[in-house]
Amino acid sequence: MDHMAPSTYFSPGELADALGALRASTPLVHCLTNTVVTNFTANVLLAAGASPAMVDVPGEAGGFAEVASAVLVNLGNPGAEQRAAITAAVAAASTAPTPWVLDPVAVGSLTVRTEFAFGLRDARPTVIRGNPSEIMVLAGTGAGGRGVEATDSVHAAAEAAISLSLRSAAVVAVSGPADLITDGRRTVHVHGGSELLTKVTGGGCALGAICAAFLPTTSDPLLTTVAAHAFYSAAAERAATTSRGPGSFAMDFIDALHALSPADLAATAVLS
Amino acid sequence: MDHMAPSTYFSPGELADALGALRASTPLVHCLTNTVVTNFTANVLLAAGASPAMVDVPGEAGGFAEVASAVLVNLGNPGAEQRAAITAAVAAASTAPTPWVLDPVAVGSLTVRTEFAFGLRDARPTVIRGNPSEIMVLAGTGAGGRGVEATDSVHAAAEAAISLSLRSAAVVAVSGPADLITDGRRTVHVHGGSELLTKVTGGGCALGAICAAFLPTTSDPLLTTVAAHAFYSAAAERAATTSRGPGSFAMDFIDALHALSPADLAATAVLS
Amino acid sequence: MDHMAPSTYFSPGELADALGALRASTPLVHCLTNTVVTNFTANVLLAAGASPAMVDVPGEAGGFAEVASAVLVNLGNPGAEQRAAITAAVAAASTAPTPWVLDPVAVGSLTVRTEFAFGLRDARPTVIRGNPSEIMVLAGTGAGGRGVEATDSVHAAAEAAISLSLRSAAVVAVSGPADLITDGRRTVHVHGGSELLTKVTGGGCALGAICAAFLPTTSDPLLTTVAAHAFYSAAAERAATTSRGPGSFAMDFIDALHALSPADLAATAVLS
Repeated sequence: MDHMAPSTYFSPGELADALGALRASTPLVHCLTNTVVTNFTANVLLAAGASPAMVDVPGEAGGFAEVASAVLVNLGNPGAEQRAAITAAVAAASTAPTPWVLDPVAVGSLTVRTEFAFGLRDARPTVIRGNPSEIMVLAGTGAGGRGVEATDSVHAAAEAAISLSLRSAAVVAVSGPADLITDGRRTVHVHGGSELLTKVTGGGCALGAICAAFLPTTSDPLLTTVAAHAFYSAAAERAATTSRGPGSFAMDFIDALHALSPADLAATAVLS
Repeated sequence: MDHMAPSTYFSPGELADALGALRASTPLVHCLTNTVVTNFTANVLLAAGASPAMVDVPGEAGGFAEVASAVLVNLGNPGAEQRAAITAAVAAASTAPTPWVLDPVAVGSLTVRTEFAFGLRDARPTVIRGNPSEIMVLAGTGAGGRGVEATDSVHAAAEAAISLSLRSAAVVAVSGPADLITDGRRTVHVHGGSELLTKVTGGGCALGAICAAFLPTTSDPLLTTVAAHAFYSAAAERAATTSRGPGSFAMDFIDALHALSPADLAATAVLS
Repeated sequence: MDHMAPSTYFSPGELADALGALRASTPLVHCLTNTVVTNFTANVLLAAGASPAMVDVPGEAGGFAEVASAVLVNLGNPGAEQRAAITAAVAAASTAPTPWVLDPVAVGSLTVRTEFAFGLRDARPTVIRGNPSEIMVLAGTGAGGRGVEATDSVHAAAEAAISLSLRSAAVVAVSGPADLITDGRRTVHVHGGSELLTKVTGGGCALGAICAAFLPTTSDPLLTTVAAHAFYSAAAERAATTSRGPGSFAMDFIDALHALSPADLAATAVLS
């Protein structure tokens, strides 16, 4: 299975260029996300160089998705009003078109979001990002994790990710000790990062927002999603060197996202 | 009144064992809490060693409360949809049974939550945690505080706490300079902590979540609630030695919750 | 245009007295604000010396606005239930009367909040605070910014601010590199601060809450709003000297708000 073999489709310079383009353009990232992580997500986007806007009021979300640079749909705690806003935003994003990211948080046993997520999967997201258990549920091959935690490994989810990508025509990203990102044909692993990210709530959710922020920077969503993950991992790695626990790590991580230059990214990213 | 006399029902080793059990089991804590503190609460739980899941969508909350290790119900800002989710979660927790904590934030003059809280008080919570004014309202002997602040002392609330415990069959915890925890028969005071916790929003709310996280660790909810308070106080005390104000305290507190070992807890807890 | 000329209506001592009065009285600030910034806003208020209470449940918000010291209405993400709560709170604040602040976040292209904001503008807010683009929209002379970002300068919004103040009988504050604050007759500029505030989500929203916290300290809302901005700028400036990026800045800013004394404020405020 050649899609499982180590891949080096992208050069360090291409990752750096994507980050440079993000910084130069300040993409407007429309987030429909859960209330647990909305503050952290906005701060992560600001630190990275994007402009976040959390608009999930029905009657506003559709129009805003049309003019935004990219949209993030995160299902971390989707109340009825937010689901209506998401439906409108996704419809508008498809028409505009505005590229958008689907983060199917905790799909599996939680019935409301799971049914909703299946519909969104089939509404042509540009990127689907999740942990291994979430990706396996969307691919139809898993039962879900334990709450918001994965109970499956990235390796176990690799086939599901490729299958989901081929089915949905989305780039699929699976987070773990090494992240796997695939467009169904090409598969890239992004190494590095820090385990402390799993001790900060929203560590995964904000990565979905960063994937959205990178989307407008090139026409290849596989490249932008790889760049987003490499950037995120590089900042986490830098933060881990100075932090004394998950509290200081969260703060140092925001500082690192802000400080990391395109050249830093090119120098530290490890792909396979 | 012997219940007011100093009590030393639990040994340092029992507190350490409870924390060790929490760390070994990573309890899944289902939180239905307010949007002001949901991020801080999740980070506190992660730092302590638990797995938080904030699920308050009607249609999901009941099923999730069945499988969670413990449930937190916090009334800090209970909108209609969240109240429906809480009702379903409490019913499911009772049936499962899943132990659960009631935190009746700001009951008294705020009519919607107060009426709702009286119903929850009578639905067999395992633990009720609040400030003195909140506990006195639930016991039927107080008018409430000033917003989310207590206007009564822990000492003034001692009788109310015991009365509320006997009435509800719940362990009742009253937060203050020294915390009072009672099961109606045994009363324990937990000393230490830091006044800076009152300068961080969610300082009390996240303690309710920590009480929930400890509940699955032993069969005695008085012990687990005492251990939760002693752990929280020990971390606050450690954070206060390094912080330069409420902002750095909040960060250092998260780091301290993560760093504090069972042996540290046994060495620093002061009960009476 | 004499209203554009440098103005020095207030002495350093008057600013210091306002901060001293805030600290001595611990005003109860009722916030109806958006879920992105509610935690940061509450922590900013606590650090400054106020007592925050985020009450936006219909059935509670009206009664609470009556007894609060001041009310903040922030339109950052106004769902249907919150809009109902805001309407009740504003009606109660008008009757009590309780002074209140309107922060019309991202008005312009976002239709739901814009229509709602026009109604609130005409309901006699004590203070209206926003970025230049938001103030120009409320004054009827602008089309709005880009998401939550201003695309107009403070200078360009000066005429609009004065016009809006005369129309609404509110003090109008426009945030920027130097803030402009006017009651239609007197205009004051507050200098200083830090550009890093624009890299922390809620940097502007929490300033609205601080404006509310200062309102009860004197009978002149122009003075209290100038004092609020000078206090906020002084804390930001202090935090910028120690921070290493937007993450540590947010933490240092909370510490600085807590540490800054009335004498510090008097010594560092720069008005014109």
